[in-house]
Amino acid sequence: MSDSSSPLFHVLDPRQFDRRRLDDLCGLTTRIRQLAKSRLGARALQTLLPHKRAMLYFTQPSTRTYLSFENACHLLGIRTTEIRDPSTSSEFKGESFEDSLRTFSSYVDVIIMRTWGEGLARHSADLMDRIRRPVPIVNAGSGQDAHPTQALLDVYTLERSFEGRGGIDGKTIGFMGDLKRGRTARSLSYLMERYRDVRLVFIAPEAFQMGRDLLDWLAGHGVHYSCTDRLHDTLDTLDAIYVTRLQKEYDTGGESDEFDHRRFSIGARELAALPEGSIVMHPLPRGPELDPRVDDDPRAMYWRQERNGMWIRVALLVKIFGVEEDLPDGQRA
Amino acid sequence: MSDSSSPLFHVLDPRQFDRRRLDDLCGLTTRIRQLAKSRLGARALQTLLPHKRAMLYFTQPSTRTYLSFENACHLLGIRTTEIRDPSTSSEFKGESFEDSLRTFSSYVDVIIMRTWGEGLARHSADLMDRIRRPVPIVNAGSGQDAHPTQALLDVYTLERSFEGRGGIDGKTIGFMGDLKRGRTARSLSYLMERYRDVRLVFIAPEAFQMGRDLLDWLAGHGVHYSCTDRLHDTLDTLDAIYVTRLQKEYDTGGESDEFDHRRFSIGARELAALPEGSIVMHPLPRGPELDPRVDDDPRAMYWRQERNGMWIRVALLVKIFGVEEDLPDGQRA
Amino acid sequence: MSDSSSPLFHVLDPRQFDRRRLDDLCGLTTRIRQLAKSRLGARALQTLLPHKRAMLYFTQPSTRTYLSFENACHLLGIRTTEIRDPSTSSEFKGESFEDSLRTFSSYVDVIIMRTWGEGLARHSADLMDRIRRPVPIVNAGSGQDAHPTQALLDVYTLERSFEGRGGIDGKTIGFMGDLKRGRTARSLSYLMERYRDVRLVFIAPEAFQMGRDLLDWLAGHGVHYSCTDRLHDTLDTLDAIYVTRLQKEYDTGGESDEFDHRRFSIGARELAALPEGSIVMHPLPRGPELDPRVDDDPRAMYWRQERNGMWIRVALLVKIFGVEEDLPDGQRA
Repeated sequence: MSDSSSPLFHVLDPRQFDRRRLDDLCGLTTRIRQLAKSRLGARALQTLLPHKRAMLYFTQPSTRTYLSFENACHLLGIRTTEIRDPSTSSEFKGESFEDSLRTFSSYVDVIIMRTWGEGLARHSADLMDRIRRPVPIVNAGSGQDAHPTQALLDVYTLERSFEGRGGIDGKTIGFMGDLKRGRTARSLSYLMERYRDVRLVFIAPEAFQMGRDLLDWLAGHGVHYSCTDRLHDTLDTLDAIYVTRLQKEYDTGGESDEFDHRRFSIGARELAALPEGSIVMHPLPRGPELDPRVDDDPRAMYWRQERNGMWIRVALLVKIFGVEEDLPDGQRA
Repeated sequence: MSDSSSPLFHVLDPRQFDRRRLDDLCGLTTRIRQLAKSRLGARALQTLLPHKRAMLYFTQPSTRTYLSFENACHLLGIRTTEIRDPSTSSEFKGESFEDSLRTFSSYVDVIIMRTWGEGLARHSADLMDRIRRPVPIVNAGSGQDAHPTQALLDVYTLERSFEGRGGIDGKTIGFMGDLKRGRTARSLSYLMERYRDVRLVFIAPEAFQMGRDLLDWLAGHGVHYSCTDRLHDTLDTLDAIYVTRLQKEYDTGGESDEFDHRRFSIGARELAALPEGSIVMHPLPRGPELDPRVDDDPRAMYWRQERNGMWIRVALLVKIFGVEEDLPDGQRA
Repeated sequence: MSDSSSPLFHVLDPRQFDRRRLDDLCGLTTRIRQLAKSRLGARALQTLLPHKRAMLYFTQPSTRTYLSFENACHLLGIRTTEIRDPSTSSEFKGESFEDSLRTFSSYVDVIIMRTWGEGLARHSADLMDRIRRPVPIVNAGSGQDAHPTQALLDVYTLERSFEGRGGIDGKTIGFMGDLKRGRTARSLSYLMERYRDVRLVFIAPEAFQMGRDLLDWLAGHGVHYSCTDRLHDTLDTLDAIYVTRLQKEYDTGGESDEFDHRRFSIGARELAALPEGSIVMHPLPRGPELDPRVDDDPRAMYWRQERNGMWIRVALLVKIFGVEEDLPDGQRA
């Protein structure tokens, strides 16, 4: 799984990525972004994978992740087929998930999937392996599972932001919001273990604090962390604050009403307390936890983070199809 | 706005197009159509913009305009991403329109939009300018606003039809139907001011007559016009009759029932009264105001008008991306 | 219609295909599959039709057929535009089907359609001919009509499976299931007349047996057939068994409840009775009539049959656009 020299196939879990793989992927992403800036480079990218076809199977809607993946495919010339509308696929109701998936694998070269069901991406990958269809599965989020490409784009954004300052190693990263139910903070936290001397600060009301299982895992892997419900006491210690929204869709009895946005949001006052070189991240879409007026601050990194998501997905597809060698040498712009 | 030598960027309003720009665009459209007729030319068009990506954001459904724009993109090799189904974008309900739009602009090179909200296209263009994202906005119709690409394809159809007869200059154009609420007659009327000695005749029942604001604008700009509710008295004076349908979707209390199709429709009897060289136009879809039997008359120009819509959109995209120079020299067929 | 030397245009009915055309198409399909196995060949396919645009008009949902056709287009570089969601096309409700179809034909080079209405594909082809739009119509299933591309992929699967054993000629083919209402068995049966000494066995409960009209047609064309409701008595006589599902969607009063799956399904016990070289086919999706455990048996041919569907559609598009000559010489892998 974590042998960085072997090619990537299924992409299911952020923990597949060891430090070498992460550094490698970040380097490739930067190289591709540089290439794409020139017309010649953008056209060269187009010629990499025009003979490949992707299925975007998004029965759990996420327009942002969808658009990011689809355009990543288009950047490489990959043709895309989509199933986004649950009603389009209603006829499949009479069919087992396995049969539907096997059908998809009859027509395309890679399946990118986002579903409600927990573990469906891994289950799909297992099926492909068992029936020996050479079709990689890319997990674009399934249920509450780890969301690997989000974690990768977050890592890339951190690395780029701390370029010239030693990268992620030694940094202090705060996570704020509904840490209990969101999957982005969780996935990224796992990957922080790959870096040296990183400190994590989980900032949330008691009832929304990061799950014990992850905290234990961090402790067991020697990652420094602390938990707090006092945002303002921590702001000046952070190199990055990763803000997340309330996961209201998982409410069973109005839990979200208990979340006090006045104490857990980023606006002008919080920006004032945040160090000069720190950055503000957010996986978007945002709610009241992130004031739009923060957008104009140079430390606001979330829009760049969003674009990074497309580029790291391009790099991932290049890795999956093993065409890195075919990239032209990009002269740095 | 109306400097025809500067490149096009946002396309929001027909009034952006002065006479030189219109002539230029019509010439380019004809050149592209000629090119596309040969296999070699069609393939050359494909290679113009394969490295560009378009978003078709059509939350106000219009399959016709959608198909026309998507295929215009495809003709140039542009990859397209769509949001057509309002329910697909339902997750964006919790997000501001500005954030959604900014997200789109993270992934694509041009946003073509058709929405219910009045002024949303201009608002989007302003946002792009403010945040300095170099992503042009193309208005494919928003609310009751001007619908620039419809007006441009109408101009092109008129110019082509009057080729060898001095073009649009000096012609008499009739508009018939629900002129009060339709936007096509309105948009085209504005552009008629760009031509010399054009006469406009607005033919409609009193309650559906063209709005006073437009009539005043025409008067203020020296454009000859008259209003009438007597179709048959005017038919033999027209070089073109632009027929439009009832805008029932804007009814608030059954106004459309008042419209008398017997007095305001084109069929065999009206064709007989229409001069030999005159043409019949319609933006489609049609209702009872235009008899399908007119289709077989050589003066029926609406199906060609529909196809012209795709071609002028191709030309517009060529202008927006500034690749006119890359077009091969087409030998006229 | 059945002159195999003339190019294909509209594809409406399996009966358009005489023996020479079938052999020709099967040969082309195999050639294309071989080509696509190498990167060079796959890229060569991409360059065949990038300047062509297809409309996939699927108002009767069928994700499988849709995916198969869309990816067949993509394999050849054809750009696709889709109307899948009936609500997307709701605006067309006010427009005649003829006007909508004519609109589609304004923008694309081929229309692939699947609709509820009986005979709509032929009606559409007639319209194109009448208005002289050179846009071929491909019937991807309309109502209870013949479904030509399904029949073609079935023929191809049979031919490939009996390669080295004389092909389809002289074979005994069983059809099992809801033969009365399904269209696949019906369409394939017509094509079996093109082969020498084929025997057809229709295996179904009395109430679901193949229609009298088809049986009379077979008799009139000298095709051997028999009908039975005893699956186990026939299994050892078959070279292929074509299993089909219950067509519950056509129930008017719970007829499907009468179907006894215990007597009409394929599982381990039936496999044991089926000869060594026989094959099991199914158009998919499957219901209880086909045990998933059959999948692991080498005689299970339905997943390959499904993939064949994409390849024969590629071959069909190559024929329609007359670019067979442009295919590179494939060296057999």
